[in-house]
Amino acid sequence: MSVIRVEIEGAASRAEAIRREADEPHSELVRFGAEKPLRLDAGVDLSPFQIAYKTYGTLNAERSNAILVCHALTGDQYLIGEHPATGKPGWWETMVGPGKPIDTERFFVICPNVLGSCMGTTGPASKTAGGEPYGLSLPLVTIGDMVRAQAMLLDHLGIESLLCATGGSMGGMQALQWAASYPKRVFAALPIACAARHSAQNIAFHEVGRQAVMADPDWRNGRYLIEGTSPRRGLAVARMAAHITYLSDSALHRKFGRELQDRKALTFGFDADFQVESYLRHQGSIFVERFDANSYLYITRAMDYFDLAADYGGVLANAFRGAKTRICVVSFTSDWLFPTSDARQIVHALNAAGASVSFAEIVTDKGHDAFLLEEPELFEIVRGFLKAAARARGLKAKG
Amino acid sequence: MSVIRVEIEGAASRAEAIRREADEPHSELVRFGAEKPLRLDAGVDLSPFQIAYKTYGTLNAERSNAILVCHALTGDQYLIGEHPATGKPGWWETMVGPGKPIDTERFFVICPNVLGSCMGTTGPASKTAGGEPYGLSLPLVTIGDMVRAQAMLLDHLGIESLLCATGGSMGGMQALQWAASYPKRVFAALPIACAARHSAQNIAFHEVGRQAVMADPDWRNGRYLIEGTSPRRGLAVARMAAHITYLSDSALHRKFGRELQDRKALTFGFDADFQVESYLRHQGSIFVERFDANSYLYITRAMDYFDLAADYGGVLANAFRGAKTRICVVSFTSDWLFPTSDARQIVHALNAAGASVSFAEIVTDKGHDAFLLEEPELFEIVRGFLKAAARARGLKAKG
Repeated sequence: MSVIRVEIEGAASRAEAIRREADEPHSELVRFGAEKPLRLDAGVDLSPFQIAYKTYGTLNAERSNAILVCHALTGDQYLIGEHPATGKPGWWETMVGPGKPIDTERFFVICPNVLGSCMGTTGPASKTAGGEPYGLSLPLVTIGDMVRAQAMLLDHLGIESLLCATGGSMGGMQALQWAASYPKRVFAALPIACAARHSAQNIAFHEVGRQAVMADPDWRNGRYLIEGTSPRRGLAVARMAAHITYLSDSALHRKFGRELQDRKALTFGFDADFQVESYLRHQGSIFVERFDANSYLYITRAMDYFDLAADYGGVLANAFRGAKTRICVVSFTSDWLFPTSDARQIVHALNAAGASVSFAEIVTDKGHDAFLLEEPELFEIVRGFLKAAARARGLKAKG
Repeated sequence: MSVIRVEIEGAASRAEAIRREADEPHSELVRFGAEKPLRLDAGVDLSPFQIAYKTYGTLNAERSNAILVCHALTGDQYLIGEHPATGKPGWWETMVGPGKPIDTERFFVICPNVLGSCMGTTGPASKTAGGEPYGLSLPLVTIGDMVRAQAMLLDHLGIESLLCATGGSMGGMQALQWAASYPKRVFAALPIACAARHSAQNIAFHEVGRQAVMADPDWRNGRYLIEGTSPRRGLAVARMAAHITYLSDSALHRKFGRELQDRKALTFGFDADFQVESYLRHQGSIFVERFDANSYLYITRAMDYFDLAADYGGVLANAFRGAKTRICVVSFTSDWLFPTSDARQIVHALNAAGASVSFAEIVTDKGHDAFLLEEPELFEIVRGFLKAAARARGLKAKG
């Protein structure tokens, strides 16, 4: 394996920056060669492969203050600071940084780009040995595969055991998978707004998104990078549909209601009369600038396949049997993608397994995306849980 | 105006049957000529235009037993019996027929295809005087326009006043519009699973569907009928997304859960591994066989534009002020497209207007589509409400 650090300067355009970012990420990169293949759940070895990641803060001498942050479907390793490709703030500015709940003055934060994604870690846009992008020839990856790859990253970093694994949505699935797969390597886990298995309704929404991408003639059976096209329209529709599920009915009503967009009356046409239409179209169009369509297929599929109990004889409690990891599960009242009932299933299983578990349901109208937003109660819970975990692990209190 | 009756026999294929059905419906047809234009909310006159409709049962001598059934987005005039184009049962077999809650042995049931649709009533697939389909040159239509056209149909049929106007979803919107626009022409109204205005979330879902259609290159800016293409893929994606909203999370879980489709293990590919995926794809593919893509755009837009209070100074109660129509509002607990809170808004406004109103929230896990399904409590409510309305209007009890 080798470690590389590359900086991107003065990329000609945002699209160019994204293309270059995928090849040469503005982050740390570790490549695993033929001697370290990744055995995938699909039953094949992935080799070589690489993980792009960012770290924030400083690893202490005892190597006991590392927190792994796992990102969601379309997230990446850029937690804080200006995103090198989009120029926007990182996706967890509210949560991570000096003095923030995940305090980078105290903790060493690692955020890897997941397997199958498009920000430097191996995914369908990565090139094979032959020099062409994988496209659909990349084997399907699972949440379990993502986590096994992350464990190899920790080996590479010389971190035997994490203080905590956390994340929201698919990031929470990974945190749960960590607690199940590597109970001795995670002192604590903090899964937020997630489930131990993807529901039929959520699979249905993902399938709509995939069908939208695949219906775009420019998708070219996944070979669009080779053929010089881009399934932008299909991917934008997929993002629009998904975006509705990240919010709540009441949040949409509060933000937009039936307010008109830059006009005083209905136009009796198919333009975006309503602000909510304009907002959705915007979400679709900015997304296709930053994300690879095949990665969207792969990662939604990984979430659909997630069913932690299935790997443990159908009994979720067995996934956590005997584990010493202390776990805090968080849900949001208005999250209808991963409702509190999903969180309760996890909590019941953890209790049945005799695990150390706490549970918080946060009252908010912000929907699933609440974990990304200004949500003071969430901040208090994360801060308190990490403080207690650090104390229990014998970390020195912050200066 | 003129009245025509045409039967379709031995159509070469289902698609052909649908095409012919649009031109020459297997139902009654009334054409309004230049002397009877329809003034649209868009501010222009539609002329000529036609309404296709079906009737069931017999109009009594007093012309006092007519019930108008208004259909939903993709419904049509074929309430019961074999659908002439699809060969399937009518969409309200559970509710309408001899001895059924809407009893055709007692009541004269009229079901018109709505303006903008594609089953015989004038819509974007109808031909202009020049002989080409309207496409997007048809002005946008509203729920108000649909109801004004229906009032012209009643004039044509010689029915001064309905015993009841009813329907679910967009059909319920029309029933409400009837009570607001023609209070003296509806003795009773029974809106089911609807709202007095379309919510931001519902507009958002419709916008996703429209964008999916418009993203299909075969849509050709709405000129696909002229250019000999068909935006099947886009329309199928739109239907899939919408279909999820017609069900409930728990219904999907009960029906499909994470069950696999004709296989014993995950295939680690993008085929429809899960039954819910296979089901959704099927829903998409059968829909494009029977529905016109531009009609889908027009009718979703009509629903988005629906905001009954807006036409009455922003106060919904004003829409019903002084009305003598007796109204029963019905909602379903698991309907998240038109949740009970929407129904309550209607009920509050009706109460504020001093109207005669009753309200039933039916406990079911079937979601929005419950109004189309076997729902005994709904049957009892409809039967009881119509019986009471008939008695109050002095109809003879059923032999």
